[in-house]
Amino acid sequence: MIVVVTPNPAVDVTYRVAEQVVGVTQRVLDVVRRPGGKGVNVARVLAAAGAATTSVLPLGGTSGAWVDTALRQGGLTTAAVPVTGDTRTTVTVVDDLAHPTMYGEPGPVVSADEWTAVTDAVRTAQRHASALVVSGSLPRGTDPGVVRPWVRGAVDAGLLVVADLSGPALLEAAAAGATVCKPNREELLDATGAPDERSGALDLLARGAGLVVVSAGSAGITAHTRDAVVTVPAVPDVHGNPTGAGDAATAGLVLALTTLTTTSGPTNPTTPTGRATTDLAPDVLRRSLVSAAAYGAAAVLRPVAGEVDLDAVDRFTTQLDRTGSPT
Amino acid sequence: MIVVVTPNPAVDVTYRVAEQVVGVTQRVLDVVRRPGGKGVNVARVLAAAGAATTSVLPLGGTSGAWVDTALRQGGLTTAAVPVTGDTRTTVTVVDDLAHPTMYGEPGPVVSADEWTAVTDAVRTAQRHASALVVSGSLPRGTDPGVVRPWVRGAVDAGLLVVADLSGPALLEAAAAGATVCKPNREELLDATGAPDERSGALDLLARGAGLVVVSAGSAGITAHTRDAVVTVPAVPDVHGNPTGAGDAATAGLVLALTTLTTTSGPTNPTTPTGRATTDLAPDVLRRSLVSAAAYGAAAVLRPVAGEVDLDAVDRFTTQLDRTGSPT
Repeated sequence: MIVVVTPNPAVDVTYRVAEQVVGVTQRVLDVVRRPGGKGVNVARVLAAAGAATTSVLPLGGTSGAWVDTALRQGGLTTAAVPVTGDTRTTVTVVDDLAHPTMYGEPGPVVSADEWTAVTDAVRTAQRHASALVVSGSLPRGTDPGVVRPWVRGAVDAGLLVVADLSGPALLEAAAAGATVCKPNREELLDATGAPDERSGALDLLARGAGLVVVSAGSAGITAHTRDAVVTVPAVPDVHGNPTGAGDAATAGLVLALTTLTTTSGPTNPTTPTGRATTDLAPDVLRRSLVSAAAYGAAAVLRPVAGEVDLDAVDRFTTQLDRTGSPT
Repeated sequence: MIVVVTPNPAVDVTYRVAEQVVGVTQRVLDVVRRPGGKGVNVARVLAAAGAATTSVLPLGGTSGAWVDTALRQGGLTTAAVPVTGDTRTTVTVVDDLAHPTMYGEPGPVVSADEWTAVTDAVRTAQRHASALVVSGSLPRGTDPGVVRPWVRGAVDAGLLVVADLSGPALLEAAAAGATVCKPNREELLDATGAPDERSGALDLLARGAGLVVVSAGSAGITAHTRDAVVTVPAVPDVHGNPTGAGDAATAGLVLALTTLTTTSGPTNPTTPTGRATTDLAPDVLRRSLVSAAAYGAAAVLRPVAGEVDLDAVDRFTTQLDRTGSPT
């Protein structure tokens, strides 16, 4: 079972209009309302791939209640932590003429006590888990140190921990010994202040991350250890909706790592001290990146974040295995 | 007590952003979420003025539950009729640079059985009521005839019935014998197809309305009977938020008519046959229009629809009494 923490879940609303124009009243032709947040997308892809998951999320207000109900109706197991503030909503307005316009609410202020309750929920959920994923932004005003006990506690319990975070929270996750830090390139450079991807990855590794996996869209996906850099190219000529592709890639990475590291014997990704090792076999690393790239590309084919085309995952995996090669 | 029916209530969300631009992701600086719909605004103004009200509204989904809770927390009495579809949301985006952009969801499809339940709720609520207000749009696909039993039943029970409707529903309310039809000028011309206000008003009177009151913003507010036209000018030099001013005017009209017609003896606005009379004393008519104009102007001074400045109502009433004169 895989525990997925979404620190800042959302109600993602998409409005289709005839033409986006500022300053006028516009009839919404079509409304889609979905639970959102990066971790929610990861959990949905994991579940679609057949993995058992538990989603831990702070939820408040009627919007939060809606997210919980919608996730459960979608077949996910949730461990919702009640919070006082209302869960945020994002509104994306689309037409066939311009880029989408997205309005993102700031999200609730979650109190220290409420974060402690989230930590308790993570601890309870991880008892029967093989992996922990922490994914997405933190609500405004949140001490980035809240991620430390989640990461450290899971690493200490022998779980694979994948942190897809940004800003100071990414640095905290690395320092807490996350098995894998998986930012996109922009988030990596932004969080570390490094001039290039390799320097940024080495920074996170020096802080304590076991492995740094950096997604860079059409430039492919790269794993960094202290001694090695392995890149798998993106699947070429995939067009569609890139929203949520990074989250699907995270799911693909977690699925591969949990499967490959438990079936390939000695390459347990964590040591008894909780410090993640960097001794994953190169083949395991490469196959994990292929899985991430295939899931990411398969998500682009679906119009909605948090969904993948599983046939496309198989197709793209074969394609990448045939044409890609470690660099 | 005054029963207020809102056939198509909403969650009204306002997003403040730095600058509205199409095609980009925008941080929402401030979120305001309020129960909306014209009848909801009318009920809130009536309640602010000290009148007892019962709001009858079809509500569905978590958005509908939120509206019910928010109205009750605001001190209103509600008689919510559960419906299957989700109550609609409107999103208005504002900045300091351009006109607001409003996105209006189409709203739920309400079934015939659900409308029957609304009719039952209206009938129950009106038992101890002196007036019925029906205000706002109908959800998409609704037979405009749904308003008939509400209007007819209340008229037959001797209530003052004010219909602030548009399109075919306005014609239905007139035909059912509404004591007062109160469209704005644009709605009147649109619904009747008449070339001018007086012709449109005569059309509604011929169909069965007892009185037609037409609000026309800064051009004032006019009452039409078969034999008379009475206009009260708008309060001059009032600047602010015009959203909801028409609803406040409806509230001011209802407050005056229920007070003046029950305290001034023989001018009961309805006859035993249910057909509203047009024999309101000219003074009562004029004072009712002054009340409507004063409430409308006082609402403009408040940033939010459904609120009025009661001191301003008194001030404007005095001002209109002094300067205005029947035309």
